[in-house]
Amino acid sequence: MIDNREDKKESIDNKESLSETLQQVLHLLDKHKLVEHVVHKQDMPKHGLVESLVHKQNLNILQHKLEQLHPADVAYILEALPLVDRLRVWELVKADRDGEILLEVSDAVRQTLIADMDSEELLAAAEQLDTDELADLAPDLPKDVLQDLMYSLDTQNRERLQSALSYPEDTVGAMMDFDIVTIRDDITLEVVLRYLRRLPNLPDHTDKLFVVNRDDILQGVLPLKRIILNDPDTGVRDIMATDAVMFHPEDMADQAAMAFERYDLVTAPVVDNNRKLVGRVTVDTVMDIIREEAESDMLSMAGLREEEDFFASVWKSVQNRWAWLAINLVTALLASRVIGLFEGSIEKIVALAALMPIVAGIGGNSGNQTTTMIVRGLALGQISGYHMRSLLKKEMGVALLNGLLWGSVLGLVAYWLYGNASLGLVMMAAMALNLLLAAIIGVTIPLVMNKFDRDPAVGSSVLITALTDSGGFMIFLGLATIFLI
Amino acid sequence: MIDNREDKKESIDNKESLSETLQQVLHLLDKHKLVEHVVHKQDMPKHGLVESLVHKQNLNILQHKLEQLHPADVAYILEALPLVDRLRVWELVKADRDGEILLEVSDAVRQTLIADMDSEELLAAAEQLDTDELADLAPDLPKDVLQDLMYSLDTQNRERLQSALSYPEDTVGAMMDFDIVTIRDDITLEVVLRYLRRLPNLPDHTDKLFVVNRDDILQGVLPLKRIILNDPDTGVRDIMATDAVMFHPEDMADQAAMAFERYDLVTAPVVDNNRKLVGRVTVDTVMDIIREEAESDMLSMAGLREEEDFFASVWKSVQNRWAWLAINLVTALLASRVIGLFEGSIEKIVALAALMPIVAGIGGNSGNQTTTMIVRGLALGQISGYHMRSLLKKEMGVALLNGLLWGSVLGLVAYWLYGNASLGLVMMAAMALNLLLAAIIGVTIPLVMNKFDRDPAVGSSVLITALTDSGGFMIFLGLATIFLI
Repeated sequence: MIDNREDKKESIDNKESLSETLQQVLHLLDKHKLVEHVVHKQDMPKHGLVESLVHKQNLNILQHKLEQLHPADVAYILEALPLVDRLRVWELVKADRDGEILLEVSDAVRQTLIADMDSEELLAAAEQLDTDELADLAPDLPKDVLQDLMYSLDTQNRERLQSALSYPEDTVGAMMDFDIVTIRDDITLEVVLRYLRRLPNLPDHTDKLFVVNRDDILQGVLPLKRIILNDPDTGVRDIMATDAVMFHPEDMADQAAMAFERYDLVTAPVVDNNRKLVGRVTVDTVMDIIREEAESDMLSMAGLREEEDFFASVWKSVQNRWAWLAINLVTALLASRVIGLFEGSIEKIVALAALMPIVAGIGGNSGNQTTTMIVRGLALGQISGYHMRSLLKKEMGVALLNGLLWGSVLGLVAYWLYGNASLGLVMMAAMALNLLLAAIIGVTIPLVMNKFDRDPAVGSSVLITALTDSGGFMIFLGLATIFLI
Repeated sequence: MIDNREDKKESIDNKESLSETLQQVLHLLDKHKLVEHVVHKQDMPKHGLVESLVHKQNLNILQHKLEQLHPADVAYILEALPLVDRLRVWELVKADRDGEILLEVSDAVRQTLIADMDSEELLAAAEQLDTDELADLAPDLPKDVLQDLMYSLDTQNRERLQSALSYPEDTVGAMMDFDIVTIRDDITLEVVLRYLRRLPNLPDHTDKLFVVNRDDILQGVLPLKRIILNDPDTGVRDIMATDAVMFHPEDMADQAAMAFERYDLVTAPVVDNNRKLVGRVTVDTVMDIIREEAESDMLSMAGLREEEDFFASVWKSVQNRWAWLAINLVTALLASRVIGLFEGSIEKIVALAALMPIVAGIGGNSGNQTTTMIVRGLALGQISGYHMRSLLKKEMGVALLNGLLWGSVLGLVAYWLYGNASLGLVMMAAMALNLLLAAIIGVTIPLVMNKFDRDPAVGSSVLITALTDSGGFMIFLGLATIFLI
């Protein structure tokens, strides 16, 4: 472990590869015009020029570039660099803004960065952060650092951190922050303005103030807009909104995200069961949730367990992927055993061996189309077990049409290839039947998984392929054995 | 067409099914606690109670429920209802708020709703909308309605609509709106406040004002926060931000969305090449883009061409899916022809027929895992052709490890099943080689497609499966023919 670190350090100090790191960073800045446009204004040295610069200058340029970037842009660059270059850039930036940057990178990359920091650095990084940000970082911190951190917080913040950590990752409690500005309802806007002007700043994304009584019970919200548009003499009570969308800490994060999209929110209060204000949710967290959720569905359907660092070691990647491959092998073996049952038939008509993968494959593809539709509908909350019957009816209709259409085409091809009309008919019947099977399991599997509160995106694809493969072989070889042999 | 409509109307007026529609709507309201909580406050009648109500009462209840809902919630309900129920609900709501609701539903559902409206209704709906909203709706409107609409607009709005329609769908120009509040930089906050208080309202999501000169050239932005926190005597010029993130109309929408996520924006100005202010982008549009983009990748990878209405007719669904199935059939036929080449070998060792799908299948799965990773990295802008070599090296490493591991396991299984050691060795070698092939094409196909500006999510999965199937059969049967026969 320590040896390993020494190796990295050595290669980090290597002069030749530094200019390569710099070039990669420049390439990344260059590729994303937006970053360059916006954050980064002066001219950039051309690549040709860079090559002629010596080590020290390279280091200065790199550091200078990095200092001007937004933490999110530094995070983006770190994610897009292979490990050695990543750690070199990290060395350059981490003194100042490591906390913020750690928050912006993906989980997988965060682990590589944290592994490069000692306890003191980690503690210093964590101390720059707000309580809700700490809660995001906490699961990745070593136990002893987390404990030291807890000691360093005051009572209110320690309680907040503990409560934030106590909510499951996919709930509103885990995504809320505590940057709330509260006012009472018995004052005028003039008083509100005087109070606000005494504050050093308003929290990011503040588009409304929260109106509470002396027990912190939420009475309503006061959008900044209304403060500006109304006369200073107006009372808060007269213009506050009392029908604001609000959440409970135990609400599901994806439901909250959908509410943000639907009602076009920027921030929303989080209250407990007594309507006591405990935090707020902001649209930037919601955007992250929307992206993560959609991505995790996509990764799950391909059998990837979690986010993978693109530059992770071979060994890490193998671990991320082996489970899925193992499951696939088991199902492939089962399908192979189905074929084994019919070896006698294949020996007699060897054409069956060439045709059977077509029947199995088309079933798998069609079933996966159906499942993808249903997983998406479930994620959007647009379909549920309630619709099982109508969806089954529709998908079976689609399957029957496709089966007859493509079954006939393939039946004709089989007839043309092998000059055997009965073989063509068996091919057609098998395709239609396997597509029907695919439709039925493509609808039922995700709906049943959802019914039992399992994520329908995880594993439904592998189950469907398993069933349509084995089923396809069974149907085709079975029909062939009955009618042709 | 007209007959069809008559049928629908008849079934819409059918008394028995109305109570069923009502129940479905209640079920939807019930399932999504958020909607109920927030927008919908009074007690809801229980299902048992509903059944006993007569037709007229049902209609009243339904209409009453719908009137209280946010347009986005009505849209959600419309999406989650089968066609007949959907049109019945649509009849009840469309008089008042049809424009807003049409904006909120998905493209596929919007088409079913528009098909149910005559030209006058459509024109009335469109007239409720802002220019940027009209631009979203325009592609779905019948030509004659669109023309009438153009005539009804004043010059400024007609020009805006035409310019919005002239930008491709995936650019900032197509997602911007024109709800901008501009001020000059030579005034004090007091003047700004006086000006704002004369406005009836501020546009949704206004978190900053845009500071322009007399030629509409953007000088900076003034966050509302700063108006509130600073003394009324302060000059706009002294506290405006001049380093705001801004976009050009021709910037790509997904790049803009990433900038919103990265810099935690709520609104951002859109300027032309002379820095003249032409519109703004808001975070609610960005959230829609993020979700649509992630979803379209997921649908593309399953070979679904576009969003499909869950309750679309069988015929519509067949059209959406047939192209993919046709391509799959062609590739399956090619793989089948590869097997055909080795029919002689299979006749001699029939076990080959049972084992070959395992080799092909594992290659397809592994290749798709690789491609999913790469498609995601490309979408996030974290990898590019620049990384081809290092990604190839890594993925081939993963493939070799997995190939040797799972190849050995399967080799042993083959040996155990058929008592043939050479068959086991051939199995192992074929699996390792096919996984290597899968790694190579899993990396190169999406990167090459990206290089030629094609969407790597569309079709890469089918290409990879085609190559790993044919390749797997070729490798396994080829090795078997050389070494076993």
